[in-house]
Order: sequence, then structure tokens, then C-alpha cells
Amino acid sequence: MTSNISPNAVIASGVEIGDNCSIGPFTIIHKGSRIGANTTIGSFCEIGVESSLANNQEAVIGDNCLIRSHTTIYNGTKIEKGFITGHNVVIRENSTIGQNVRIGTFSDIQGDCKIGNYSRLHSSVFIGKFSEVGEFVWIFPYVVLTNDPCPPSKNLIGSTIQDFAVIATMSTLLPGTVIGFGSLIGANSLVQQNVPIEVLALGSPARIIKPVNQILRKIDGFPGYPWFQNYRDGYPEELSIIYANLRLKYSGSA
Amino acid sequence: MTSNISPNAVIASGVEIGDNCSIGPFTIIHKGSRIGANTTIGSFCEIGVESSLANNQEAVIGDNCLIRSHTTIYNGTKIEKGFITGHNVVIRENSTIGQNVRIGTFSDIQGDCKIGNYSRLHSSVFIGKFSEVGEFVWIFPYVVLTNDPCPPSKNLIGSTIQDFAVIATMSTLLPGTVIGFGSLIGANSLVQQNVPIEVLALGSPARIIKPVNQILRKIDGFPGYPWFQNYRDGYPEELSIIYANLRLKYSGSA
Amino acid sequence: MTSNISPNAVIASGVEIGDNCSIGPFTIIHKGSRIGANTTIGSFCEIGVESSLANNQEAVIGDNCLIRSHTTIYNGTKIEKGFITGHNVVIRENSTIGQNVRIGTFSDIQGDCKIGNYSRLHSSVFIGKFSEVGEFVWIFPYVVLTNDPCPPSKNLIGSTIQDFAVIATMSTLLPGTVIGFGSLIGANSLVQQNVPIEVLALGSPARIIKPVNQILRKIDGFPGYPWFQNYRDGYPEELSIIYANLRLKYSGSA
Repeated sequence: MTSNISPNAVIASGVEIGDNCSIGPFTIIHKGSRIGANTTIGSFCEIGVESSLANNQEAVIGDNCLIRSHTTIYNGTKIEKGFITGHNVVIRENSTIGQNVRIGTFSDIQGDCKIGNYSRLHSSVFIGKFSEVGEFVWIFPYVVLTNDPCPPSKNLIGSTIQDFAVIATMSTLLPGTVIGFGSLIGANSLVQQNVPIEVLALGSPARIIKPVNQILRKIDGFPGYPWFQNYRDGYPEELSIIYANLRLKYSGSA
Repeated sequence: MTSNISPNAVIASGVEIGDNCSIGPFTIIHKGSRIGANTTIGSFCEIGVESSLANNQEAVIGDNCLIRSHTTIYNGTKIEKGFITGHNVVIRENSTIGQNVRIGTFSDIQGDCKIGNYSRLHSSVFIGKFSEVGEFVWIFPYVVLTNDPCPPSKNLIGSTIQDFAVIATMSTLLPGTVIGFGSLIGANSLVQQNVPIEVLALGSPARIIKPVNQILRKIDGFPGYPWFQNYRDGYPEELSIIYANLRLKYSGSA
Repeated sequence: MTSNISPNAVIASGVEIGDNCSIGPFTIIHKGSRIGANTTIGSFCEIGVESSLANNQEAVIGDNCLIRSHTTIYNGTKIEKGFITGHNVVIRENSTIGQNVRIGTFSDIQGDCKIGNYSRLHSSVFIGKFSEVGEFVWIFPYVVLTNDPCPPSKNLIGSTIQDFAVIATMSTLLPGTVIGFGSLIGANSLVQQNVPIEVLALGSPARIIKPVNQILRKIDGFPGYPWFQNYRDGYPEELSIIYANLRLKYSGSA
């Protein structure tokens, strides 16, 4: 089976492209790029941008990915299968992105960071260097993960979002903060201190309000969290077991 | 009269393009697109992006529009005459956009939403799915219209901005909130509850401060609102009558 | 020495391009553009966009610049040597940009503004019309410089950031505000009033907290400001002398 590469795309020699891929018009793929099977790359993308900051001169994208138009991905990036982007996404050097991750339109991944399996970033999310985003995380529009406690400086400390946490829109995480497993940060919050596991925190500065399991859905009065009780689209079937096991791990370390 | 289509543009067969249009280099127009007369589409745009989420496989753009470069418009979108975009705008499926609307650079219209006649969105505005923006509305940069009361969930409720309302920069509307006719939301606000008509509300959470007609302009001490007293560029001449009539309608329903 | 211009670029006749430049695929350079020597322009850029609002039909870019992909620069813009952009930057008409300025990904420079030498804007910075950004300034992601005290109106008043000031992420400057020399605005602040020189101000509304020289770095307890004590990458060697001289100037005028 062969791939459908636009005659208007510019593909460097030596690029590896798997079976059944589609590459849109005016997209540029630089040497050193490896694209998995069944992956679609839209128009006006640039994959494998060279950079002296990249740990290696490769951009690796897995199987079954969908990279939407006007997206830029640098060398030193490794992205696993099932990755989906919105439009105009920028992913800089040395980003390590797990399986089935989604990153929305206008998001800016500054590089030297990790994003775990099944995490979903909505539009216009800013991930500063040295950030660590766990698995099954949700990040909503205009959330900023900062990294410089004394800007500008060279002592950058990324922030960390643990598995299953949710960061609502317009919230800012100050450098080095840790958002605990399964916690929810309310909209428009400024997180200055670590947030423990499974709590709602919000405000500027963010304060702990209550355990997430006390958040009731307005629509029916049922518990809203852990969120996967109400939302499972595209996740593994055994999500409850995964959550329970991780909960044990994080509770033990708390 | 014929149109000026760049030889570097990629126009699918069957696309309808009106008289006196201009299509820039490297722009892609997919099948099912219909472009009105006297419309200019800049470079690096993609019009009529196919999607399984689109209600129909058409993108319809009216007469006398200006779509600036790097803009992406999906199928299922219907845009009336006189539409103007900034650069790098993304408009997803099933967006219904009235006459003489303007949407600024880096704005992200998530789809399944309505934007009424003569409304103007500045740069980097995020319109979540199921939002309803009325007529003669102004929305300033980095405003977010959210839709998920218990994120992530599937029970999305868009917010509503009534006619002639103004949302200042960096404000967030929580799901389902209604901003009343002619009201002003101050910069950096978090709107958690409905805002009645013709008031200034601001803060996080936003609170009602006073009627908008008590806002005086620093420059001369004259009333600043309704805003069309001071700003009429590009609006119909009978704007005062339109406002007065709508005011009656909204007052009656309050 | 000649330049490396992609065969897929569209360069208007009469464009001046200096020695040793590189122009990427699918980039468009309009007539009236002048590009200095040793300058690299990435893919999908558009330089010299015509506009009836431009003071002149020229876009001038200096030597040793790096314009990254998907960037749009209008006519009436003058940019001096050593300019570096991220991706997807938009620079509108009549922007005057000094030497060695950096502007990050998704930043939106609305035009009719000045940005002084050696200032660095991070990603997604919004510079409203009539803003004045001094020299050696730092602006972090999602900062907004507004200009309309009574939106929408025609009486725009830009805000001013004096030399060596730092604006942390997600902060908004209201119209006409002046941020004093060497001051630091904390993250997520709403600046409503002028901020004097060399102070930390933060909050919504922003209030003065203390002189910047009382901010100690957590990492070692040393003073964090003036920031160039800790961060000098890419700046002139005589930065301390420049700072001291400017300090005298600003102190005298305070």
C-alpha cells in the first residue's frame, strides 16, 4: 500500500514515510524525519525543523497520527502513535510526547518537556520548557506553564501536572509547582504552591476548596470527579482500574 | 469580469468563485466551496476543510469578504457578505456568521456556534462550541467563551452574548452565562453568573458595578455608553434606531 | 556571495535581498521589501504586505535577522539588525523595531508602535497600537498592552514600558499606563495605574509590593533584580553601565 503525497509537498530525500499516509499540499518534511503508517499531515506544515538546540536531528512521529495544517515540529521530538493536533501548533526541540495525545490549535510547546499518554491539551496552551505533563491530563485554553521563578534568569524549573489532573481555562502555573493526581484547577487561577491530590483549587492565588469528589454536577447532582466517570471517549476500557492503581501509588507517596 | 487567482493556488474542480475575486499564492480551496463576488482570500489559506463533524460538505463565503493569510475555514460554515478576518484565524465546522462580521488574528472559532451581524472579535478570541454571539457585539483579545461546566464532560452549554454587549480583554465567560444587551465586562474578569442588560460588570468573579450610562469618558466627561455614540465606523447609519428598538425588546424580556 | 532562495518562494521584482540570505519554500516577498545581509526567512512567510494604513509601501528588515516560519510582516515596518522571531508572528503596519529584538511565536504586533533595542517578547504577546516598548524590556506570554479606555472608541492611548522593565505572564496593561524603568509586574496582574521605577507590582488591580532590589532569588538568596546581574545572554558587555546611566535619567525625571 502506498501513500498519498501531494505533488506540491517538499519531501527531503531519506525521509521515511509509512504505508497509507497522506501529506498535504505545501508541506515540508526535512531529512531525518520518520513518519509512521496511516498518518495524515495537513497542508502548510513543516516537520523536522533543524535546530542547534535539538538533542538529535530527527523528528519521529508514530502511526495513526493526524497533524493538522500550519503545524511546525522540530527535530529532537519523539511523538508516539495516535497523536492529533489542531491547526497552527508549534512543537519545539526535545519534546517527548506519549501515545494518543491531543494538542489543540495555537498551542505552543516550547520543548525539553514531556507529555504523557492520553493527555489532551486544548487550544492555545503554553507549555514552558522543562514542564512535565502526566498521563490522562486535561489542559484547557490559555493555560500557561511557566518555568522561571525570577524572570529573566537561567535557573528554569518546570512545573508538573500529575496524572488525571485537569487545569481549567486561563490558569497559570508558577515555576516548579506540582498539581496533584486527579486534582482540578478552576478557571482563571494563579497556582503559586503545590496542590495535593484529588482536590479542587482555584483563585489568584489558588486555594484548596474541597476534595474533587465533593463536586456535584449541576445537571444531575452526580459526582463530577474523577472525570472519567462522565467522559470516556477515546480512552482505554480499563480506565477505572488504571485510575485506582495510580491513586494507590500517589496516595502512598503523599 | 474575471477573478485574479494565483497560479500557485490549488482550486478544486467545481469550486464556485464569483466575479472580481482575488485568491493568493499557495491557498487551497476544496470542493464544495462557494466564494462570493469581490472577495479577497490571502495566501496560505485553506477553505472548505472536510470533516466528519460538518453538517454539510460546503463552505460558503459571501460577497465583499477579506480573508487574510494563513486562515483555515471548515466545511459546514456559512459566512455572509462583508466578512473580514485577521491572519491565522481558524473557523471550525458549522459556524454561522452574519453580515459584516470581523474576526481578528489568531482567533479560534471552535464551530457549532453563531456570530451575529456586525459583531467584531479582536485578536486571539476563543469561541467555544455552542456559543451564541449576538449582533453589534465587541470582543477584545484573549477573551474565552467556555462551554463545559464540569470539564471534561459531554454536557456542553455555550455562553451567550446579547446584542451590543462589549467584553474587554482577558475575560472569561463560564459555561451557560448570558451577558445582557449593551453591557460591558471589564478587563480580566471571570463571569460566573448572568449579567443583566446595560450594566458594567467586572472582577473575578465579576460583579455589577453600575449602569453603563454612568460610565463617563475621561477624555471629555461625556457618557461612554452606549458605545455607538462615540464609534460608528462601518456601521449602518440608523444605529441609534436599531439600538433603541432592541432595547425595548430586551427590556421587555428582563 | 549569493543568497539561497528556494525555487518555491515567490519574490517580486525589485525586492532587494542582501548577500548570504536564505529564503524558505513558499515564502512570499512583495515589492518594496528590502532584506539585509545574512538574514534567514523561513517557510510560509509573507513580507511586505500592502496596506492602505501603511505610512509607506516598504518593509525594511536589517542584517542578521531570523524570521521563522508562517510570519507575516506588513509594509510601513522598519526592523533593525539582529531581529529574531518565533513562528506565526504577525507584525502590522508602521511598527518600528530596534536592534536585536526578539518576538516569540504567535505574538501579534498591531502596528503604529515602537519596540526598542534588545527587547524580548516571548510567545503570544499582544502589542496594541500606539504602544511604546523601551529598550532591554522583557515581556512574557499572553501579556496584553491595551489602548482603548472606553472600548470601542477612537481615542486610543497606548501604554508605555520603560527600559529594563519586566512584565510577567498573563498580565494586562490598561490604556495609557506607564511601567517604570526596571520594574517587575508579577504574573496575572491587571495594571490600572502607572507603576514607578524599580518596584515590584502585582495583583488585580496591581499594587506596589516593594523595591525590586528586595526580591531575593530562592535558589541562592542573592538579589534577583536588576535582572541583568543574573542573565546576560546576547546583551552588550557594558550592560551595567547602560543600566546605571539610564537609572540616573529616569530617577531625575521621577
